[in-house]
Amino acid sequence: MASAFYRLTATDVLAKVKSNEILVEDYAKSLLTRIEVRDEAVQAWAYLNPDLVLEQARALDAIPPAERGPLHGVAIAVKDVIYTRDMPTQFNSQIYAEDAPKVDAGSIAILRKAGALILGKTTTTEFAATTAGPKTRNPHDPKRTPGGSSSGSGAAVGDFQAPIGLGTQTGGSTIRPGSFNGIYALKPTWNSITREGQKIYSLIFDTIGLYARSVADLDLLADTFALQDDTPVSTNDTVRGAKFALLKTMVWPNVGSGTSAALDKAISLLRNRGAEVEEISLPENLHGLSDWHRLVLNSDGRTAFLPEYTVAKDKISEQLAGHVENSDKISRKAQLEAFDSIAAARPIVDDILGKYTAIITPSVPDEAPLGIEKTGSAAFCSIWTALHTPVLNVPGFKGENGMPIGISLVAPRYHDRHLLAVGKAVGAIFEAEGGWKPSI
Amino acid sequence: MASAFYRLTATDVLAKVKSNEILVEDYAKSLLTRIEVRDEAVQAWAYLNPDLVLEQARALDAIPPAERGPLHGVAIAVKDVIYTRDMPTQFNSQIYAEDAPKVDAGSIAILRKAGALILGKTTTTEFAATTAGPKTRNPHDPKRTPGGSSSGSGAAVGDFQAPIGLGTQTGGSTIRPGSFNGIYALKPTWNSITREGQKIYSLIFDTIGLYARSVADLDLLADTFALQDDTPVSTNDTVRGAKFALLKTMVWPNVGSGTSAALDKAISLLRNRGAEVEEISLPENLHGLSDWHRLVLNSDGRTAFLPEYTVAKDKISEQLAGHVENSDKISRKAQLEAFDSIAAARPIVDDILGKYTAIITPSVPDEAPLGIEKTGSAAFCSIWTALHTPVLNVPGFKGENGMPIGISLVAPRYHDRHLLAVGKAVGAIFEAEGGWKPSI
Repeated sequence: MASAFYRLTATDVLAKVKSNEILVEDYAKSLLTRIEVRDEAVQAWAYLNPDLVLEQARALDAIPPAERGPLHGVAIAVKDVIYTRDMPTQFNSQIYAEDAPKVDAGSIAILRKAGALILGKTTTTEFAATTAGPKTRNPHDPKRTPGGSSSGSGAAVGDFQAPIGLGTQTGGSTIRPGSFNGIYALKPTWNSITREGQKIYSLIFDTIGLYARSVADLDLLADTFALQDDTPVSTNDTVRGAKFALLKTMVWPNVGSGTSAALDKAISLLRNRGAEVEEISLPENLHGLSDWHRLVLNSDGRTAFLPEYTVAKDKISEQLAGHVENSDKISRKAQLEAFDSIAAARPIVDDILGKYTAIITPSVPDEAPLGIEKTGSAAFCSIWTALHTPVLNVPGFKGENGMPIGISLVAPRYHDRHLLAVGKAVGAIFEAEGGWKPSI
Repeated sequence: MASAFYRLTATDVLAKVKSNEILVEDYAKSLLTRIEVRDEAVQAWAYLNPDLVLEQARALDAIPPAERGPLHGVAIAVKDVIYTRDMPTQFNSQIYAEDAPKVDAGSIAILRKAGALILGKTTTTEFAATTAGPKTRNPHDPKRTPGGSSSGSGAAVGDFQAPIGLGTQTGGSTIRPGSFNGIYALKPTWNSITREGQKIYSLIFDTIGLYARSVADLDLLADTFALQDDTPVSTNDTVRGAKFALLKTMVWPNVGSGTSAALDKAISLLRNRGAEVEEISLPENLHGLSDWHRLVLNSDGRTAFLPEYTVAKDKISEQLAGHVENSDKISRKAQLEAFDSIAAARPIVDDILGKYTAIITPSVPDEAPLGIEKTGSAAFCSIWTALHTPVLNVPGFKGENGMPIGISLVAPRYHDRHLLAVGKAVGAIFEAEGGWKPSI
């Protein structure tokens, strides 16, 4: 049975370690075996040191039960834009190849103290800031991208190489891989989890992201990071009587047949269970959101990548050099108008979202595209990143090629726990009846 | 003459190194001697390694002239909340005592490439987040605080132990020490200089700060960090015909006799030179700005210090533990209302500021108070930190006890270069006729 430990969710691992059914070391070995078997096909890791993993596992096993943390023994995959004091942090950048600062990001310090087993560093696009894919392949079809920029964490969790993972999102970097790899992905409210020690692209957009194969596991992480709404969440949230809204937004023309069909099915499943679903739109004066996001992002890149540009201009991609050189000639005036317009939109959109149990909206245009050169489109994600709202990708649907498609649930800022509670009820339906199940 | 090199401004050092009048090593030795003589009285340094300084200096001297950077040989003091790969970074926290991650902050990477000599790490309050003073004393009176949280950088530049320095500001941490130590201090527009590798308190407020004893030196730093306004600055900015406004703001009742007299004198000096100065106020609906700043700051501290709280709750101050525990019981709703209200105020205040050459407003209530236990009040600074505008402390005035008092010039966001140009003209007058001159 040892060989199947790798398939456990974090919640299950915790229970089995607590009841002495398994040792963290055995669990770690099972994951390492899974990775060994699958690594050639998936290539999710930028850095993985089995000896270090086993050393951590044995140290965790040696902790007396009374002193164990809330994530004791749970393995986690960490996107390689987040500092880990015992592993290199390389950002998929030549400039930082083999670079290993001896420092833990704030998120990692919290996870370690909680007893998590830091498994390794997962691949990313360059600085989590471009759409040029790393080596990683979609675990459900190696000819396809796992999405990005959190490519490796999404693929590792989708492929049962880790139960949970850390990603980041500045455009669509957490939600997109969530959909492409058939897993749950939470982009929490902006700045509700510390970004200390996580590479900066845009201060006002960058958000740490969480991956899991169950909402219960995301709840574990939300507990660990002390995510708290104003109102405690009711534990008996049901779909019956709930009121959802389909929000197509102004980027709807990007939608493909797979996502369109998934949304139709989602709505029909929810209605069949007694939920209301209405269709709404954003006010016209917010239709600039995608553009505003781009203007702020590119301007923030001008600041963020000046160090790398200064030190080694020839070792960063043209896109990032373009940010520093302001190749789009974005004036400070235009940058500030975009920054202020997004800021003004946040409370307005919160009010709209607050009228519903949750908003339903696409995570991605369609299933993961063929090829690993490009990680796909963030069209449906970037406005929510800009608006700071929590977004949960819920898997369960299937595209024309049998690949997973998820849809996004969105709630107002700091309603993360509410969103997870809704996602748990909704996810149970979508996973059971949406039509997609992992075959790996 | 070698013994007086330490008094040079950065601009002067550059010229003398360029013309082969001095070697960087001789310059560094002069600074180290100054520090040796003065360290017992001032105690500005959290870490200073003379061997490392001289090693850097000799390496700089070995660079062929054609390959030298724009700050070649200029020494800089770095606040100890900013990572330096060859020196410890300790945040004045027991948790990080002797901690030395091998990583440079983004700002340091840029400075090193420009040829700056990283002199050492300067003292700070705990995580630049409290008002409990470090060991440092005001160079103009060791019985008084140098201010904080950028205590060491402010004192070192004021005491001729370094020509320029890096600070940070989340409330008033750059401008306050600027005033107390009698030097120029620029809090640039938020996020116009990368904060990568700089300890987080509040993402939306934290700003790197710059110290110098001349505006020309701040211009050098502004060039190095590629600060750019939309409109190139006219080099013949004069005070004659300029239109200033005195803005008392709602925190005016905090003003003491020293600052009040300094402002009176400033206004009379400007009027004597042919400038207009009128008095204005902020609209009533913005009078919540100080409160909003506090609500957001404390809420952001809840996120920022969760790692330290989790790892070693007993080793952080009560104030910071209180943030994490939300001891003020700030709801997410109140936090977001404050966050959104500040955001809405930014373009409104920019419009008001944009009507004037610059706004004149207090930097601090009065001269540096007696005692080093507390670093003083940020009352006059925090609203500008919240509003993201650039602020320049201009020295030149004197309090009842002969201590320096500066006043703040403020301009709209991304008018940093304009502000420096105005500050150069205004500063020449204030320094000549304001009544205070350093006697050290």
